[in-house]
Amino acid sequence: MPPAEVVLGENRYGKAEVRIVAVSRDGDRHEIKDLNVSIALAGDFDATHLTGDNADVLPTDTQKNTVYAFAKEHGVGEIEAFGLRLARHFVDSHGPSRRCWVRIEEYGWDRIQLGGQPAPHSFARTGPETRIAEVAVAGGAGAGGSSRDELVVSGISGLVLLNSTGSEFHGFHQDRYTTLPETRDRILATEVSARWRHLPGDQPVDQRDWRTSFDETRRHLLGAFADTYSLSLQQTLYAMGERVLRERDEVAEVRLALPNRHHLLVDLAPFGLTNESEVFYASDRPYGLIEGTVRRAGVAESALAW
Amino acid sequence: MPPAEVVLGENRYGKAEVRIVAVSRDGDRHEIKDLNVSIALAGDFDATHLTGDNADVLPTDTQKNTVYAFAKEHGVGEIEAFGLRLARHFVDSHGPSRRCWVRIEEYGWDRIQLGGQPAPHSFARTGPETRIAEVAVAGGAGAGGSSRDELVVSGISGLVLLNSTGSEFHGFHQDRYTTLPETRDRILATEVSARWRHLPGDQPVDQRDWRTSFDETRRHLLGAFADTYSLSLQQTLYAMGERVLRERDEVAEVRLALPNRHHLLVDLAPFGLTNESEVFYASDRPYGLIEGTVRRAGVAESALAW
Amino acid sequence: MPPAEVVLGENRYGKAEVRIVAVSRDGDRHEIKDLNVSIALAGDFDATHLTGDNADVLPTDTQKNTVYAFAKEHGVGEIEAFGLRLARHFVDSHGPSRRCWVRIEEYGWDRIQLGGQPAPHSFARTGPETRIAEVAVAGGAGAGGSSRDELVVSGISGLVLLNSTGSEFHGFHQDRYTTLPETRDRILATEVSARWRHLPGDQPVDQRDWRTSFDETRRHLLGAFADTYSLSLQQTLYAMGERVLRERDEVAEVRLALPNRHHLLVDLAPFGLTNESEVFYASDRPYGLIEGTVRRAGVAESALAW
Amino acid sequence: MPPAEVVLGENRYGKAEVRIVAVSRDGDRHEIKDLNVSIALAGDFDATHLTGDNADVLPTDTQKNTVYAFAKEHGVGEIEAFGLRLARHFVDSHGPSRRCWVRIEEYGWDRIQLGGQPAPHSFARTGPETRIAEVAVAGGAGAGGSSRDELVVSGISGLVLLNSTGSEFHGFHQDRYTTLPETRDRILATEVSARWRHLPGDQPVDQRDWRTSFDETRRHLLGAFADTYSLSLQQTLYAMGERVLRERDEVAEVRLALPNRHHLLVDLAPFGLTNESEVFYASDRPYGLIEGTVRRAGVAESALAW
Repeated sequence: MPPAEVVLGENRYGKAEVRIVAVSRDGDRHEIKDLNVSIALAGDFDATHLTGDNADVLPTDTQKNTVYAFAKEHGVGEIEAFGLRLARHFVDSHGPSRRCWVRIEEYGWDRIQLGGQPAPHSFARTGPETRIAEVAVAGGAGAGGSSRDELVVSGISGLVLLNSTGSEFHGFHQDRYTTLPETRDRILATEVSARWRHLPGDQPVDQRDWRTSFDETRRHLLGAFADTYSLSLQQTLYAMGERVLRERDEVAEVRLALPNRHHLLVDLAPFGLTNESEVFYASDRPYGLIEGTVRRAGVAESALAW
Repeated sequence: MPPAEVVLGENRYGKAEVRIVAVSRDGDRHEIKDLNVSIALAGDFDATHLTGDNADVLPTDTQKNTVYAFAKEHGVGEIEAFGLRLARHFVDSHGPSRRCWVRIEEYGWDRIQLGGQPAPHSFARTGPETRIAEVAVAGGAGAGGSSRDELVVSGISGLVLLNSTGSEFHGFHQDRYTTLPETRDRILATEVSARWRHLPGDQPVDQRDWRTSFDETRRHLLGAFADTYSLSLQQTLYAMGERVLRERDEVAEVRLALPNRHHLLVDLAPFGLTNESEVFYASDRPYGLIEGTVRRAGVAESALAW
Repeated sequence: MPPAEVVLGENRYGKAEVRIVAVSRDGDRHEIKDLNVSIALAGDFDATHLTGDNADVLPTDTQKNTVYAFAKEHGVGEIEAFGLRLARHFVDSHGPSRRCWVRIEEYGWDRIQLGGQPAPHSFARTGPETRIAEVAVAGGAGAGGSSRDELVVSGISGLVLLNSTGSEFHGFHQDRYTTLPETRDRILATEVSARWRHLPGDQPVDQRDWRTSFDETRRHLLGAFADTYSLSLQQTLYAMGERVLRERDEVAEVRLALPNRHHLLVDLAPFGLTNESEVFYASDRPYGLIEGTVRRAGVAESALAW
Repeated sequence: MPPAEVVLGENRYGKAEVRIVAVSRDGDRHEIKDLNVSIALAGDFDATHLTGDNADVLPTDTQKNTVYAFAKEHGVGEIEAFGLRLARHFVDSHGPSRRCWVRIEEYGWDRIQLGGQPAPHSFARTGPETRIAEVAVAGGAGAGGSSRDELVVSGISGLVLLNSTGSEFHGFHQDRYTTLPETRDRILATEVSARWRHLPGDQPVDQRDWRTSFDETRRHLLGAFADTYSLSLQQTLYAMGERVLRERDEVAEVRLALPNRHHLLVDLAPFGLTNESEVFYASDRPYGLIEGTVRRAGVAESALAW
């Protein structure tokens, strides 16, 4: 007989997908930031669950307003810093909020070229690719910054990569249900979802050069994908994470999820044709999904989950 | 200076989104099962990451084949049981696989009515709603069933609910950024994402009545949503979880994610019209997101994460 | 040398995807209508294109407001009638608007059951299926109703149907690139997209029983799909259209688009298993797409395109 | 009483969304083409609709095979030429097929940079933007090329553009339902869907420089969007079409669909802040939709619909 007592477990709430475009001006020249901001708060919220007493609830509508107001009051800047500013605000200013998570997606825009010159205030959206920051802050209202736990994760999603050669797959375990032929030359394609945790540094976290860190990490992910001769997508995954850790001192750990976007060689023999790795069917489903973490040995785990 | 040593952390891999439709026959009358099956394996897979040696890798293609073959050999049955059968197989038959997760989505179909009678082999897809099973099995190849850890979670996604009255929101915390007016009558709408963990039982887990358990749990989720007079979506969330735990002895814990699909009262005053909770704008973004767990006190946690 | 003169051709504009939920009350019992309304206007709009003079432009924001105001002033009722009311309004009240198209999607909701009784104001969304009305009205502001051209089309999208037997495909044309084997038993599945044009009737078009017309037409589409023994999806398409025209006197013409959702028999022979139409792989892409019109001979074409 | 006779009207069928990736090699350096090809045939297909006799039906599976075989036999090249080759093949080789439409979407890939050099066979997907070709060919099997009607349309979709200033909207028609304030400075953003019809030329259509034509047309669309001071999105639409026609002699007509992606100025006054066109809410729905055609006067219409 199960025990009758029912209790509230882990819970959190917040405003998701606050879409904001912020324009900043330097004379005639504009910059834009195009973000999707999601906030979650956890803490002392039993009352609203158990009795509907909302005295401790900071409405999600207020959270949304705060995003817009902060963009004006402080500017947006880099998303890791904007996320930290928001997360610290909620934990510091609202007693019942013991933890705050902020996730920001940033959509890229390039300047349109006009007569060979970049237009001052005209832009075209770049790739399917999205830059991500995930920030978590824990600490009580009276605690102040020194005792807060903070986690900053940067990331990227929607980055689709393809090597048209330089990939093999063979020597795998065989059982009764195995029919896959071995291959010495295949297309390797994936949509990279990557997140990496930053080491705590000496300087205040919102004064770091987040932009350079992101650009360089992205460059190393692409470089390792491209110049790793691959015997498995797992091997490529590890090489990508390892490259980042070797090249970027500020990164503690890299997590990657790499769907294997299968490109199947089309059998042209029925038409009297050969297919020497020329014509492929790009399959939607099913797909392999390879997930893995590469980390720096000896670095402490974060106190905050991600 | 960060330590130079780079190591492989947590990792897993498998085939995702294996789409299978299985037809079973009882004379002229057919039954269909329409599933989307995803598998992940974790264990001793360092070699493929570090050197590309795939000797311990069971290809994701083989995993896919196993799904289809098992549907023939054992039938599909209820998805919790099908998931357990698959997960046990991989952990038991493939030494390096220490853990296996199987996630199955089941799409519903109703019989088409012909002249007032259900057609024997003609079907129409039901709702946007999807039934879910998530199974995890841990244990070595030689361990046998008695020492395995097993987790069975059932769930539902895409279940969209709306109360057109019986919902208030007021008495909340106010700060500098608060503009939301209090309301004594609003639409409450959400898209339920629910998962619930089953208690280990006396009988073999694949002989339980999973279908009844799912149907009844779903009925209680809907009932609690409909007849809870709501002062916050958090209160409704807790009521839904509590109802399931009070009514279904086999459930240890319920996790709910409830996006608040805001329906905003349209201001008709500029047109000389009143709006007595009659005309609403259904907003897409941003939305509140309420997440929470309701559990049975004193029940052991699962050894396996979900 | 191409002629230098550049001219404005066909054009139209309007507000798309106005999301409205309207609640009506009969004592404690509520009804809801959940719509997505899109409007387009064509007429004398050269000035805004050529010089940016907007004097003749009715802003799309005003169109949106009109949808909400009309829901209050006139109620929503059936979507064909609501669409006609809106389209007539724009053509009659705004001189430059010579034509108006209104497209409405209606999402279905069922009452939640509470203790075996339907709840008075609690609802769950039904299927992926959407009811559609497309209305077009042409005529000048001074013309009045008698000289207007009007077109009313009803429709359905997202209706997914499957026959698990009763379908063959053979005897087709073969050429050098044909590899498809003939089959005497296959799954036939499709996602119905159907639209049907209503005959002009004696009574005012907004007093027709649109609800019954829709429900019965839907019933006949399903019935014909289910009880047609099919030698090709084209044959099933024709049977569906023909059934509607034979059974529903108010319908002039039916247009159907039926993607062939291929279900491929999985080859289980490598595992020593047979597959007697039991286990199928549900493929996403590519898919066959069958489009066709079935009409009543001798009925005049509509003066308005659809 | 409606006439009893039911007849088959317009119809067509074909294989949709054939996903093909073709790799070509020049030594170590690879090129890839990533396409989504859809085919439709119309002609003498009454029998399959009325009786299920498929003798005149070229299976959609064969159409798919033809795409893959042609990629090997003839190469892919530019998508307009590949589409023409496929469409002519079906009309010329299969008697009952009187018309053929081929629509091709091409996804862009950039070379990954390695040490400042483009990698020889590693690629990253570009933007959300897709290049499109739509080809139609009409003519009997015995007709030969000289009497065929042919239509070639190029296009682009998913091209998202934004001007952060240089856009006004005022002086519009006002009625009872108007509440929109006039604005002298707004963000103008849209997702361009453009298609343009090519003039028949002297040289064979598959020897034209389709790539340059596409690149230049795209450049002019962006240029006109960026340097048009806009009083309405209609004015911008016309300017974009006109620019293309003035600059590209090979284009007969441009069709544009421009959703107005509204960016709403956030009211920061409740927080004691001003908002000088700095902080915007990017709204999803509803949206204005502006559609228009700009054409070269005096050029004959195509005999084929598009």
